[in-house]
Amino acid sequence: MVATAILGASGFAGQETLDRVLAHPELELVALGSDSLAGRTADALDPRLARNGHGPLPVFVPNDEALGADAGLIFCCLDNEAAAELEPPADTVVVDLSGAHRLVDPAVHAEWYPGPGANGDWCYALPELDPPTGPLIANPGCYATAALLALVPIVDAIAPGGIVVDAKSGVSGAGRALKESSHAAAVLENVSPYAVGAHRHAPEIGQVLGFPVCFVPHLLPVRRGLIATCYVEPRGELRPLLEDAYDGSHVVSVLPAGQVPDLARVQGTDSAEVGLFEDSTTGRAIVICAIDNLGKGAAGQAVQNANLALRLDETAGLRLSGVLV
Amino acid sequence: MVATAILGASGFAGQETLDRVLAHPELELVALGSDSLAGRTADALDPRLARNGHGPLPVFVPNDEALGADAGLIFCCLDNEAAAELEPPADTVVVDLSGAHRLVDPAVHAEWYPGPGANGDWCYALPELDPPTGPLIANPGCYATAALLALVPIVDAIAPGGIVVDAKSGVSGAGRALKESSHAAAVLENVSPYAVGAHRHAPEIGQVLGFPVCFVPHLLPVRRGLIATCYVEPRGELRPLLEDAYDGSHVVSVLPAGQVPDLARVQGTDSAEVGLFEDSTTGRAIVICAIDNLGKGAAGQAVQNANLALRLDETAGLRLSGVLV
Amino acid sequence: MVATAILGASGFAGQETLDRVLAHPELELVALGSDSLAGRTADALDPRLARNGHGPLPVFVPNDEALGADAGLIFCCLDNEAAAELEPPADTVVVDLSGAHRLVDPAVHAEWYPGPGANGDWCYALPELDPPTGPLIANPGCYATAALLALVPIVDAIAPGGIVVDAKSGVSGAGRALKESSHAAAVLENVSPYAVGAHRHAPEIGQVLGFPVCFVPHLLPVRRGLIATCYVEPRGELRPLLEDAYDGSHVVSVLPAGQVPDLARVQGTDSAEVGLFEDSTTGRAIVICAIDNLGKGAAGQAVQNANLALRLDETAGLRLSGVLV
Amino acid sequence: MVATAILGASGFAGQETLDRVLAHPELELVALGSDSLAGRTADALDPRLARNGHGPLPVFVPNDEALGADAGLIFCCLDNEAAAELEPPADTVVVDLSGAHRLVDPAVHAEWYPGPGANGDWCYALPELDPPTGPLIANPGCYATAALLALVPIVDAIAPGGIVVDAKSGVSGAGRALKESSHAAAVLENVSPYAVGAHRHAPEIGQVLGFPVCFVPHLLPVRRGLIATCYVEPRGELRPLLEDAYDGSHVVSVLPAGQVPDLARVQGTDSAEVGLFEDSTTGRAIVICAIDNLGKGAAGQAVQNANLALRLDETAGLRLSGVLV
Repeated sequence: MVATAILGASGFAGQETLDRVLAHPELELVALGSDSLAGRTADALDPRLARNGHGPLPVFVPNDEALGADAGLIFCCLDNEAAAELEPPADTVVVDLSGAHRLVDPAVHAEWYPGPGANGDWCYALPELDPPTGPLIANPGCYATAALLALVPIVDAIAPGGIVVDAKSGVSGAGRALKESSHAAAVLENVSPYAVGAHRHAPEIGQVLGFPVCFVPHLLPVRRGLIATCYVEPRGELRPLLEDAYDGSHVVSVLPAGQVPDLARVQGTDSAEVGLFEDSTTGRAIVICAIDNLGKGAAGQAVQNANLALRLDETAGLRLSGVLV
Repeated sequence: MVATAILGASGFAGQETLDRVLAHPELELVALGSDSLAGRTADALDPRLARNGHGPLPVFVPNDEALGADAGLIFCCLDNEAAAELEPPADTVVVDLSGAHRLVDPAVHAEWYPGPGANGDWCYALPELDPPTGPLIANPGCYATAALLALVPIVDAIAPGGIVVDAKSGVSGAGRALKESSHAAAVLENVSPYAVGAHRHAPEIGQVLGFPVCFVPHLLPVRRGLIATCYVEPRGELRPLLEDAYDGSHVVSVLPAGQVPDLARVQGTDSAEVGLFEDSTTGRAIVICAIDNLGKGAAGQAVQNANLALRLDETAGLRLSGVLV
Repeated sequence: MVATAILGASGFAGQETLDRVLAHPELELVALGSDSLAGRTADALDPRLARNGHGPLPVFVPNDEALGADAGLIFCCLDNEAAAELEPPADTVVVDLSGAHRLVDPAVHAEWYPGPGANGDWCYALPELDPPTGPLIANPGCYATAALLALVPIVDAIAPGGIVVDAKSGVSGAGRALKESSHAAAVLENVSPYAVGAHRHAPEIGQVLGFPVCFVPHLLPVRRGLIATCYVEPRGELRPLLEDAYDGSHVVSVLPAGQVPDLARVQGTDSAEVGLFEDSTTGRAIVICAIDNLGKGAAGQAVQNANLALRLDETAGLRLSGVLV
Repeated sequence: MVATAILGASGFAGQETLDRVLAHPELELVALGSDSLAGRTADALDPRLARNGHGPLPVFVPNDEALGADAGLIFCCLDNEAAAELEPPADTVVVDLSGAHRLVDPAVHAEWYPGPGANGDWCYALPELDPPTGPLIANPGCYATAALLALVPIVDAIAPGGIVVDAKSGVSGAGRALKESSHAAAVLENVSPYAVGAHRHAPEIGQVLGFPVCFVPHLLPVRRGLIATCYVEPRGELRPLLEDAYDGSHVVSVLPAGQVPDLARVQGTDSAEVGLFEDSTTGRAIVICAIDNLGKGAAGQAVQNANLALRLDETAGLRLSGVLV
C-alpha cells in the first residue's frame, strides 16, 4: 500500500480525488489536508462517508501538516497560487491538479498564471499519449485533456493552422467557490461563452500540439461533463490514427462512424469518448471528445498518472463504468 | 388592418406566430389553420388565450381552409414537405417559416429537402441584411439567422476559407414532435452534437455568404435560446462593419468590447445580441450571436419580414424587451 | 405621473420592479437607489436598458438619497434589516417588498426577523383578497402569496387543522447573493427542502388564515416560478368559492376542473393560476397555485398594490401575458 | 451462480437491472428479453457495453424465449399489461418491477390497473421492512418505496388520518416511452403536479400502512432521483423508531437531526436517505425520504429482493456509493 496524502481536499477536485483514493486497492490515505476543514472529520465534506462502514473517518489536517506526512504519493488539489509555492518532498510522487506547473516556457507561464510555478522539474503527463516521465507530475487541465485526446493522435495528419476547439463544460468545472457566474440563476436556461480568446488552457493545448489553436470555452447548465468539438483540416486518413492511439485502452473509446460522443455515458466516470466526422460541405474533419471534467478531466486522470508513476495497474481505483439515463 | 392567416399553427413556431399576430396593431387574424386541432378553440393550444378578455376565441380550421380564407398575409408554419406543396394565392404576402423555399439551387435543394420546393419565385429575406424583395418570403432558419447576423456584415473582411460556426440551441428548436432526442431524460444534464457535418442550415449559410462554412449544431438542456460561436480569420477591422450594419436597429445590438452575448437577455424576445472578440493566441476573430430560436430565429423574424413586405413599421408586434433573471 | 423611487434596486426584486416602473404609463422614475451601484448607470444592472431608446439612462444614487428624493411612491427592495430601519416620508405611498413589516404581533415578528420592524402603521396587502388600506404597504412574501391565493377564499369551508402547504420555488427566489445553496452545482439535478419546519413565511400564512399551517419550501433547478401544493380537508363546496373570489380578475385564473397549474404559463408574468382537485382515496382537497416568484410573488404584486393605493388602474404596468414553450 | 433472465430489458428499469446483473457476483445472465430489440446485441441499448472487455455481448431474444430459458431468477420489467399476463415458471424466483401484482384486493386492483394481475401468489416485498416471503415478488413502486421507507417504521406512532405525501421525481420515472409530458420543452424550467388525487401508488401506500394517505406526485426537471416529503401528526417519539428500523442497514440511512436528505447523494445509487423534522408552528412531523427512482425505486430494490429470496448477501450487486457534485 502506498501512503497517500491529499492537499486541498475540500474543493470538487479534492473531493473526487478522495473518493478514488478511498476506493483504490493500492493506496492508503494517511493525510487529508484542508486548511478550511482542519480538525473536522471527512463527513463534513461528504456526509456519505459517515456510513461507509470502513472504520473511523479520516480527520482533516492543515495542508502543511499533510505535506509533511511522509507520504509516498501526494495529490495537490490546491489553487494555482498555493500550488506554485509547493516544495515537494524528495522521493515522493506528486500529482498537481492545478495549473501551476503545466506551462514549460516561463514567459508563457508568467502571462497566464500568478506566482513562480512554471514547469521546472515537473512533467506534463497525459497517460494515453504522454505518460509521466518523473515523480513530479503536472496533471492536464480539463479542457486541455479533451482537446488533446481528440487532436494529439492526428497532429501530423492535419493542417497546423485554423484549428478551432469549441468546448462546453458543466458548472462543476468552475469550482466550488461562490461566483456570480456560478449562481444557479445565471446558469440555468443559459449557455455562457467565457474568457473568450483568453483562457489559460489555450496555451496548454498549443504547447503540446506545437502550434496555437483557437479555443473558446462555454459554461453549460449541467452539473458535470465536458465536450470539446474540434475542427481541423485533414491531410490524410484520421480514423486509423485515432483507433491506433487508443487501441486496448480501457479509458478512451473511439466510437464507430456515425456515433456521437455522449456526456451522459461518461458522467461520473474517468473514461472518455472520441468521435470523428467529416463535414459534407467543406471537407473539414470534426473530432469530438466527451469526458467528465472531474473524472478524466481532473481526479481520475490524476489517479491514472499516479498509477503509472508508481508502476501500479494503470486503471486501479478508476471509475470506468458509469450510471446512465 | 391586414387580414392574416396562419397555417400549421399547432407547432412551436405556429404558436409563437399566433402570439405575435394577436398582439400586432395592424394584423387581424382571420384564419387559424391546423389539421390536428381543426374544430377546437385556440385555448386548446394555449390555455392562457381563454383569459385574454379580447372577445371570442379563434377556432382552428383545416389548413386548406385557412389557405383559402382570402387573407392578405399568410404565415406558413407547416413542415418542409407540406410547405413545399403550397400554392400561394395571388396578391398575398406569404412568409414561409419552413425550409422548403430557402435554397436557390434546385440541385442543392434536392440534396437537403424532400419534395419540389426550392426557391422559384420566393425571396430569402433577413430583414437587417437582405430585406424581402417580393411577396413570397422564405424566412431563414434559426441557426442560419444567428450565423448570418454574425457573418454577413464582415463577409468581405474575412478569409472565405476555414470559417467554423459552432452553434448551440435550446430544445424547442427541435419542434414539438416527440422524438428520442427530445425526451427530457436524453436532454437533461447533457449537450448533444447532432447532424454533425450534415445539417440543412449549412448550405443555407453558405448560399448567403457565397462560400461554404463548417457548421455543427448542439442541443442544450435549455428550453429556448440559441447561440452561434463563429470563428473567422480577419483581414481588417471587423467592429466598425458590425456596428454600421446594425446602427439604428431596434432588433440587433452589437455589444461593447468585452461583453458576451447572453441567452437570458434574448430569451422570449425577437432581438439579437452580437459580440466580437479576438483570440489572443491565433489572432482569429470570434463573433458570437445570441437569439431566441423561436423569436428572431422563427416567428419574430417572420413578423418582421411581413412588416417590411407590407410597408408597416418594421418592429410592429415584435417583442423587443424581455424577461431577465 | 407619480414620481417614483426604488430603494435597493440591485437585487432581483429591485431589478424586476425597475422593469415594471419603466414600462408603467403612470409612474415616472425619479430616483434609483442602490448603495452598491451608486454612481453607475442602470445598464450596469441590465445591459438591455442601454438600448431601449428612451433617452438618457437613469443613474444609481445611494439609498438614502433615493429615500429623500421627494417621490410620491417608494418601492423598498432592501433586505429585512435595512427595511426595518426605514423611516418612511410623510404623504408617500411606500411598498415594502421585504419581510420587515409583514408580521403584526411584535413577539412573533421578533421570533422570525431581526431589527425592530413589525407591522405598526403598515398594512399587509394582497390585492385580490385584502387590498391596501393605507399608504404604508407590506408586500406579501412569494410563498405566502401562492398559499394565500389558494387558501384565503376557502378558509371558512375547510378544517383549520392539518393543512399542509408544500411549496417549490425557482432559485431566483433565494436572491442574488452568493450562497452555497444557490451554487449551480448544488441546484442542478437536485431538489432541496430547506428551512424545514422553520421558514418565515409560515407565520405569515398563519396570520392571514387565523390558524397555523404546516409549510415546507423546496428549491427547484428552475430559474423562476413557484408552485404551492396545498392539502386541506373540505367542509363544503370549494370551487364556487375560488371562482367567486377571482371572478373578473385579470391577474388570477381559476382553471377548469382537471387542468393543472403550469409554471411555464406564469413565468415572466405577474399572473397566477389556481387549480382545485379532490383526492380519490381520502376525500381531501388539493389546491395548487402557480406564480412567478419575482412577478406576482414580488415586483408585480408590489406594483399592483401601488396602483390600488394610488387609485390607478389595478393592472397598469403589469405583465399579464407571458412567453410560453 | 444463479441463471438469470430479464424480460423487457429495453426500458429504463430493464437497462438498470441489466447493469446490476452484469456486475453481480452471484448472478449469470442467461437470457436478455426484449421484443423490440430481439436479435440485436446489448450495445444497441447501451453502447458502453461494447467496451467492457468481458467477452461476447449478450444478444436480445424475444421475451417469450427469455421466459422459457430455464432461469432460476427472472426480472420482469414488462409494462403492467404484459406483466399481468405473465405465467411464472415453477421453482423460479420472479421479481416483477411492474405494478401488476402489487395490490392485494382484486377490486382495488381492478380500479387502478388493466388486466387480471392482482396479487394472488405474489408477495409485496420491501426488503428493510417487509422482506419477500415467497418466490413471486411484487417489487414496490418508486413513489411507494420512498413513502413507505419514511412512514412504515413510525406507523404506530402517528395519527392515521391527515397524512400527506408530496413527492417529486426525476423524469426517468416516467419511462422511456415518448409522451408530451416527457418532452424536454415541457420539463425544463418547470415542475408539474400530475395524476393529482388519482395516482396508482396511493392505494399501494395505503395498503401497506393500513389506511389511506393523500399523495400527489410532481415531475421535476431532473434526470433521476425522487424525494417524498411526508407530513404526519406524531403521537410519540419518532426518531428512535426510524433509527431502530434502519440500524445496521447498508442501504437506508437515517440522517442526524437538522440534516436534509439530498437527491445528489443518492442519484445513481440503490441507497436511501431519511430525515426527520418537527414543524415549529403546528407540531407536525415531517419525514423526508430521498432515493434514486431507478435504483432503490426500481432495479436496485429488485436485485435486493432477489438476493433475499435466493439467500444471497442482501447487498450483492447493489450500488451503495455514488457520484457526488
